[in-house]
Amino acid sequence: MANSRYEYVRKFESDDTLLPGCWLVVRLDGKAFSKFSQDHAFSKPVDLRGINLMNSCAEAVMREFGDIVLSYGHSDEFSFVFAKDAQVFKRRAQKICTTISSLFAAHYVFQWYKYFPDMEMRYPPSFDARAVLYPADNILRDYLSWRQVDCHINNLYNTAFWTLVHRGGCTPDEASKELDGTLSDYKNELLFTRFNINYNDLPAVFRKGSILVKKVVEETIERTPGVFVQKRKRGFVVLYEDLIRDPFWADHPEILGELA
Amino acid sequence: MANSRYEYVRKFESDDTLLPGCWLVVRLDGKAFSKFSQDHAFSKPVDLRGINLMNSCAEAVMREFGDIVLSYGHSDEFSFVFAKDAQVFKRRAQKICTTISSLFAAHYVFQWYKYFPDMEMRYPPSFDARAVLYPADNILRDYLSWRQVDCHINNLYNTAFWTLVHRGGCTPDEASKELDGTLSDYKNELLFTRFNINYNDLPAVFRKGSILVKKVVEETIERTPGVFVQKRKRGFVVLYEDLIRDPFWADHPEILGELA
Amino acid sequence: MANSRYEYVRKFESDDTLLPGCWLVVRLDGKAFSKFSQDHAFSKPVDLRGINLMNSCAEAVMREFGDIVLSYGHSDEFSFVFAKDAQVFKRRAQKICTTISSLFAAHYVFQWYKYFPDMEMRYPPSFDARAVLYPADNILRDYLSWRQVDCHINNLYNTAFWTLVHRGGCTPDEASKELDGTLSDYKNELLFTRFNINYNDLPAVFRKGSILVKKVVEETIERTPGVFVQKRKRGFVVLYEDLIRDPFWADHPEILGELA
Amino acid sequence: MANSRYEYVRKFESDDTLLPGCWLVVRLDGKAFSKFSQDHAFSKPVDLRGINLMNSCAEAVMREFGDIVLSYGHSDEFSFVFAKDAQVFKRRAQKICTTISSLFAAHYVFQWYKYFPDMEMRYPPSFDARAVLYPADNILRDYLSWRQVDCHINNLYNTAFWTLVHRGGCTPDEASKELDGTLSDYKNELLFTRFNINYNDLPAVFRKGSILVKKVVEETIERTPGVFVQKRKRGFVVLYEDLIRDPFWADHPEILGELA
Repeated sequence: MANSRYEYVRKFESDDTLLPGCWLVVRLDGKAFSKFSQDHAFSKPVDLRGINLMNSCAEAVMREFGDIVLSYGHSDEFSFVFAKDAQVFKRRAQKICTTISSLFAAHYVFQWYKYFPDMEMRYPPSFDARAVLYPADNILRDYLSWRQVDCHINNLYNTAFWTLVHRGGCTPDEASKELDGTLSDYKNELLFTRFNINYNDLPAVFRKGSILVKKVVEETIERTPGVFVQKRKRGFVVLYEDLIRDPFWADHPEILGELA
Repeated sequence: MANSRYEYVRKFESDDTLLPGCWLVVRLDGKAFSKFSQDHAFSKPVDLRGINLMNSCAEAVMREFGDIVLSYGHSDEFSFVFAKDAQVFKRRAQKICTTISSLFAAHYVFQWYKYFPDMEMRYPPSFDARAVLYPADNILRDYLSWRQVDCHINNLYNTAFWTLVHRGGCTPDEASKELDGTLSDYKNELLFTRFNINYNDLPAVFRKGSILVKKVVEETIERTPGVFVQKRKRGFVVLYEDLIRDPFWADHPEILGELA
Repeated sequence: MANSRYEYVRKFESDDTLLPGCWLVVRLDGKAFSKFSQDHAFSKPVDLRGINLMNSCAEAVMREFGDIVLSYGHSDEFSFVFAKDAQVFKRRAQKICTTISSLFAAHYVFQWYKYFPDMEMRYPPSFDARAVLYPADNILRDYLSWRQVDCHINNLYNTAFWTLVHRGGCTPDEASKELDGTLSDYKNELLFTRFNINYNDLPAVFRKGSILVKKVVEETIERTPGVFVQKRKRGFVVLYEDLIRDPFWADHPEILGELA
Repeated sequence: MANSRYEYVRKFESDDTLLPGCWLVVRLDGKAFSKFSQDHAFSKPVDLRGINLMNSCAEAVMREFGDIVLSYGHSDEFSFVFAKDAQVFKRRAQKICTTISSLFAAHYVFQWYKYFPDMEMRYPPSFDARAVLYPADNILRDYLSWRQVDCHINNLYNTAFWTLVHRGGCTPDEASKELDGTLSDYKNELLFTRFNINYNDLPAVFRKGSILVKKVVEETIERTPGVFVQKRKRGFVVLYEDLIRDPFWADHPEILGELA
């Protein structure tokens, strides 16, 4: 039985090849994660186990896709930055996005018990993902800055909110009323004067989000007894740094240099 | 710290809204599943546990997306058919495809041990997905026929191949040589004359693939002792039928009738 | 000198192939035509010479593109309906739209003096065009109805407006104030009671716009002296009819029948 | 009569907004121009009147679209380069391309008799146009180089071909056979040794095509008798230069500087 009679239906498939020569960012977002985190008793304002699980899933994506030069994540989102000339899946948008979202979600379930050994997963999460192109280095940096500012805004709010609830005796409604419409300065001041918390002393992983990059690292190995050699290998590193200002990019010139 | 300075980067996001008024099919395919099934010792030519796991993941997708009127799967692929006027995620292609692929993959891992209780999952699988539009009922039917013919061709080949290997004493290379370029009739004949297998007697689930539809089913319930009532509820049904010919569509008029 | 070094730039061209199996409508709109018609002293509310010129340009487009089954125009716009399975330029949107817009505009200038023999063209007009897909017959009909209702609304307004100005002694501002926000009934009534104009008696070409279709017409030809034969030939016909209601489609079944 | 019932058909219009931050090139090509030029007795290999008409149409396009920083044309094609951040028509591809193609074609007819005063236009030409994005300056330069190399290859071939026909006594078939598959050196040599033509001495307008740019030019004006003032005004300049090598870009830094 030949299949040719029906194969014309392939002509209805459309081409979604992405423009070459642009930074290709795939941003992944958890679906209904505030409910998911509640249903699984995540610590508030931030659950370090959840962050580490997200980072581990992102690393799995980076292992699969060699063209990713940097990933940045916070909360329930992760952005994967592919090199400008990445030819991954011939730059077909849906193929790239769906493979990443499914791989990430599958790892999230697969690695769950490593990070939440005492918490049964009640149902699996899902993630959407979208591809966006950025034609120039400075626009890519602005994209990443946008996400890191978002991390800052959310984390400062959540820190103030949950501190009011956990330590200030507020109901969630009261905390929400107290904070809505306030500026960063107000929240910083509130944390400091009422709870003696200096926001900038909180762990960078909360305030800055997670930056994953590939790095060549040197190891000293004892090849044979008493013989030590330096070995260079490429590995993944998680950084919790400010990527908005220039120093980060000066320290890691290979990122915009496209792995040069 | 306002985020407005960087928010212009949103302008680089593109609109991938799908044309209204067309059947919207999302076809999902396993990535490197021949390796995955080998690494997890799937039965050959078909592993019923694997089929049931795939079907269960598809049902989870259908529970999440009420607009899916039919799903059809075989091997490592599944097609989800959304009603012509489905407004799911405003018909944004990447959002639909990535949510489905991630939900499916997450369920694949989540439900693994229910179907493979004795087999450790060595690594999680991934799936790609693509959206395709079909403007008319007959073209949608041709699409589904295309996939079912594909199921038939693959299953007949695999049945013949693995029968030659398991029972005919062939090496995989020899089996492959024996079959390459042969027509269906030849393989049917080979199975029958050499191994006394009537291909058409094999389980329909292998030969036809799995069709998932929502059905209103009637149940008889004993409401109070001795009092029986008929209750109608909507549930999922898996069918292993020929969907190429007309009878299937005559038996299930509500599918093309868009859930009417 | 080989050109291969630079040819990679072709990879930046994107594919804009339109979905098969859908009615393909190209709608063309004059750019700044109220100014153009003023600069060329068009009669108000409608200039029949302008309509005939537009229709003639549309016919030229239909001669070039055999796949167009119907065109509909009024004011400075024209819609060209291609058969569902038209393969024109492999259904590449920009190629189709730009060829039509340029051919139409070039004919507008080329045929100008045939319709405006006494009016010098001061500058050439331009037109934009866009391709839209309609997956089903009823939606295509709704599209055309949408345009014809638009024709009606505009023409009734313009008729009332210019009658107030030309015969009612109003300034344009006064006429505009008189009409803004009024319903059709009001304008009909105004025309009838104050100016004794029965709107429905105005020429259909003004009220209904122009529908161009291909028709097989019979001609009686005198082949040799005294010998008359019937000859069937395909020609273009302009109709000024209501295409919203069913009779039009019953009278011209070949249109939705895709030239069958 | 309200139009709302049908207005839903607008939802079938798709968004074709082009990515911001990229050079936007619209390339226009004459349809069947070898026939058009033959039907209108263009001089061979190149008709200077035709070139000047094309250039004049391109200038009209540039007057209409202030965001065009450079145009390049030869033969029956023209490329319009919009500034990276041009917001013309909100960067909607079809709107931009169709307006340009129609304006160009309309001017071609409108200005015809200025350049071909003795030649009746038998029918109007048409042009297609496509939008292509180039994310970086060097890729834009490669695009323009690609077109200028194409100009060179075609012009050298046509010069050799028509010299063989006009002065070498060849039939077109013979000339074609003589040249097919030969390299540039061969054609240069043939022109020189057999016809004493040094190809590089031919007018640059033939060999290099036409580059249109906006330039601020200084004029000396006699404001009142005996009082001369320098006046700076922006005007269009046609250049016939090599734009492949660096000097052109060094001489015109404002082009890639986006009109800075």
